[in-house]
Amino acid sequence: MPSAAGRGHGQDRRPDSEDSSAADDYAKERYGVSSMIQSQEKPDRVLVRVKDLTLEKADEEVWVRGRIHTSRAKGKQCFLVLRQQQFNIQALVAVGQHASKQMVKFAANITKESIVDIEGVVRKAHQKIGGCTQQDVELHVQRIYVISSAEPRLPLQLDDAVRPEVEGEEDGRATVNQDTRLDNRIIDLRTSTSQAIFCLQSGICQLFRETLIRKGFVEIQTPKIISAASEGGANVFTVSYFKTSAYLAQSPQLYKQMCICADFEKVFCVGPVFRAEDSNTHRHLTEFVGLDIEMAFNYHYHEVVDEIADTLVQIFKGLQERFQTEIQTVSKQFPCEPFKFLEPTLRLEYREGVAMLREAGVEMGDEEDLSTPNEKLLGRLVKEKYDTDFYILDKYPLAVRPFYTMPDPANPKTSNSYDMFMRGEEILSGAQRIHDPQLLTERAKHHGIDLEKIKAYIDSFRFGAPPHAGGGIGLERVTMLYLGLHNVRQTSMFPRDPKRLTP
Amino acid sequence: MPSAAGRGHGQDRRPDSEDSSAADDYAKERYGVSSMIQSQEKPDRVLVRVKDLTLEKADEEVWVRGRIHTSRAKGKQCFLVLRQQQFNIQALVAVGQHASKQMVKFAANITKESIVDIEGVVRKAHQKIGGCTQQDVELHVQRIYVISSAEPRLPLQLDDAVRPEVEGEEDGRATVNQDTRLDNRIIDLRTSTSQAIFCLQSGICQLFRETLIRKGFVEIQTPKIISAASEGGANVFTVSYFKTSAYLAQSPQLYKQMCICADFEKVFCVGPVFRAEDSNTHRHLTEFVGLDIEMAFNYHYHEVVDEIADTLVQIFKGLQERFQTEIQTVSKQFPCEPFKFLEPTLRLEYREGVAMLREAGVEMGDEEDLSTPNEKLLGRLVKEKYDTDFYILDKYPLAVRPFYTMPDPANPKTSNSYDMFMRGEEILSGAQRIHDPQLLTERAKHHGIDLEKIKAYIDSFRFGAPPHAGGGIGLERVTMLYLGLHNVRQTSMFPRDPKRLTP
Repeated sequence: MPSAAGRGHGQDRRPDSEDSSAADDYAKERYGVSSMIQSQEKPDRVLVRVKDLTLEKADEEVWVRGRIHTSRAKGKQCFLVLRQQQFNIQALVAVGQHASKQMVKFAANITKESIVDIEGVVRKAHQKIGGCTQQDVELHVQRIYVISSAEPRLPLQLDDAVRPEVEGEEDGRATVNQDTRLDNRIIDLRTSTSQAIFCLQSGICQLFRETLIRKGFVEIQTPKIISAASEGGANVFTVSYFKTSAYLAQSPQLYKQMCICADFEKVFCVGPVFRAEDSNTHRHLTEFVGLDIEMAFNYHYHEVVDEIADTLVQIFKGLQERFQTEIQTVSKQFPCEPFKFLEPTLRLEYREGVAMLREAGVEMGDEEDLSTPNEKLLGRLVKEKYDTDFYILDKYPLAVRPFYTMPDPANPKTSNSYDMFMRGEEILSGAQRIHDPQLLTERAKHHGIDLEKIKAYIDSFRFGAPPHAGGGIGLERVTMLYLGLHNVRQTSMFPRDPKRLTP
Repeated sequence: MPSAAGRGHGQDRRPDSEDSSAADDYAKERYGVSSMIQSQEKPDRVLVRVKDLTLEKADEEVWVRGRIHTSRAKGKQCFLVLRQQQFNIQALVAVGQHASKQMVKFAANITKESIVDIEGVVRKAHQKIGGCTQQDVELHVQRIYVISSAEPRLPLQLDDAVRPEVEGEEDGRATVNQDTRLDNRIIDLRTSTSQAIFCLQSGICQLFRETLIRKGFVEIQTPKIISAASEGGANVFTVSYFKTSAYLAQSPQLYKQMCICADFEKVFCVGPVFRAEDSNTHRHLTEFVGLDIEMAFNYHYHEVVDEIADTLVQIFKGLQERFQTEIQTVSKQFPCEPFKFLEPTLRLEYREGVAMLREAGVEMGDEEDLSTPNEKLLGRLVKEKYDTDFYILDKYPLAVRPFYTMPDPANPKTSNSYDMFMRGEEILSGAQRIHDPQLLTERAKHHGIDLEKIKAYIDSFRFGAPPHAGGGIGLERVTMLYLGLHNVRQTSMFPRDPKRLTP
């Protein structure tokens, strides 16, 4: 492969040497700044992945592309750490047959985060290389070309960005605050923690859809620009729409229900949900990703509850099986107990939850909604008693649910509705929906809703509607709570809240 | 199972008989209007799927839930067609041991599109039943209960809605115009054609993601509310955002590219794309679903073009294999040649396309963009010459592409950009993007773009950026063109255009 060296690097630019003419440099063809890759040619060179550089490749000559993670010059040698996604390897440029002192100096001056192509020989390391994922081997550099240079001043240091907070506090070492991270998200996303979080999040979406498609669901696409506010009008963003105005959908619910009325029977969708809530908490975003389910059932809404709960269980199991590396990587920075769940999922009635809280000293009414602290407390009580981080709370008071929630036939004060919780925080809210236009009208009146504004919604049920139930899951919350993180901004690539619209 | 009859139907309401007292009716427990299913109980009754009612089940007693598609009373008998999604079966209610004349009358009066539960015996039909999907059997009804009533006047008739246009024109029979369909979308979506279109569309999304995940891509979620218009500012919707204003993303491109700069290497996303274009054509929507890809490459953007083209080929093959029933169903209403494609995909250069057009008598300049009629003509010429409905046009003139398109190193007038076409219409536009901040600045200046407005975009490339390319596919167009349909509103469940914001 050495014969191919320099190919693909066009007119290499080499910094003017200060202390020696290029003529003196026997390695001058072996390093430099490549001209921009503009698809000039199609070399047949194979680039090996850093994670594949193991003892099995010892003494092989390979080409690798990666970022300069760190570099440290030491006499006639320069030690580089070459990073590729979550993996890194030590690379050594040393004065000798392949490298001149000018080449070593060149390598030492490459800015951190620059992308380089290296040709080198894989060698067994004399001792385990701490701090690298490839601990048993190092790369002896024969050629090095800069593919894309990073500016010398980075807005944050990757090593600081992955340091556990407790370590920063105890040892007084630097950590990176959240706004700096988010303002410089493309750097922050390069850390092993971020790489792992978002690979796992991609996995959640994949497992969600895989499971539902196996269960016979159909994926639907629902409009985000709508003519009327879906749930009453509060907390909705307004859009200019040609000569009129419109709204951003606060949930796909009406459309999911229309699909049920249109005989799709079992539907799901994955898409953005918009909430103009001025909430600056650890778990609210103004734009998040909803994993939504709606399903016609035969006789009882528990048929749907069981399907949703099993879908979440399949996600948890799939993550355990397929994303163990990512879970371990995140836990290095954010240590956390592994996520526990039962099969079948624990389902408690709301009144049972209230009783547990009262036993723990909480005072609350039967028809009162759960406050956030009470939700968390109940999560801890359930964990102690049942050893699970995931459970369902069923049969919420009718008074605290939206007008379209089906009342419980057995008790006028409760309803056929449910929430699901992970580590004591709500991740899904759902219910049997009223599919009868007459009862829906009555309930809307009871809630003081302007019938004219929801006419289209009510009319959807006038041409035969099957009984149905569903729910919506917040993707970022599932990722956050599964990994035991503490802020939903860590699990949104480019989060949006009342104060943040960039990047 | 008869012992379970009536269970789950609570206090059945039965219409007052006109000509006979209930006391005279020996079948009075065998029919009626069920009380609303409110999850009163969990009967262990199994509901059989209509599509599973075949000769294998002959003489079995079954429960089925479906819609009354049509009904026809004839003396002491009533013939119903019971529909479930794309499948239907004839059901017979006849005066005899199980049914009284009151029951037959009741059945005959059930409004079309009402949902009913029927208990019946599957019987071999004396002759093939035309017009039903289950041609070999019919259902002899023993009990019938209305689960959800449809209003008697339907806004459109399903049989009219699936009639091929040519048949309507030749025989003077009714068809349904597009606005009536879209205004009453929940009824229109119940037709076998609509059911098939959207099951197939769900399949396209699934195949797209399956293929890319197999190729090592990661799914990302990009924000739709953004602070600056992504591509200059024309055709963008404005959103009120608390005390300021924001925009709806016209494409996820900036965010896909940021993910590449953040080392995700190969990413895709599926989500809404918003275009405030006042275009009222057969192929423009103001909100559509983008299937977007972005990928770092080693040396040549054709590495990316090959991956995208192969992804589309895998979709085409998957549809052929898994969705043949749906393809056949749609072609009954909209006859069309099967979709043809080559492996590997045909890739022509733009100049070759222009030469073919000129040979066919078209006059156009080397750097002129393709008009829609020329695109279609070229599609026909390519089909004649190469026998494919899918091809790539590569190396577009630099002048007709956005500022961030990488110029062709070999020719200052062309660029490393490409479009892909299905049946002569563009479904994907893509390019190698400029990853060098200096060249990007130069090109933006050349296009007269305000550098201040795209500062964040350019800054994304300052900390080392790999060469990369990508493209965006319009989901509704792919569905439309694969099935040979003629309007993108047929393949959007709830389409949005300058004149339509509802339902």
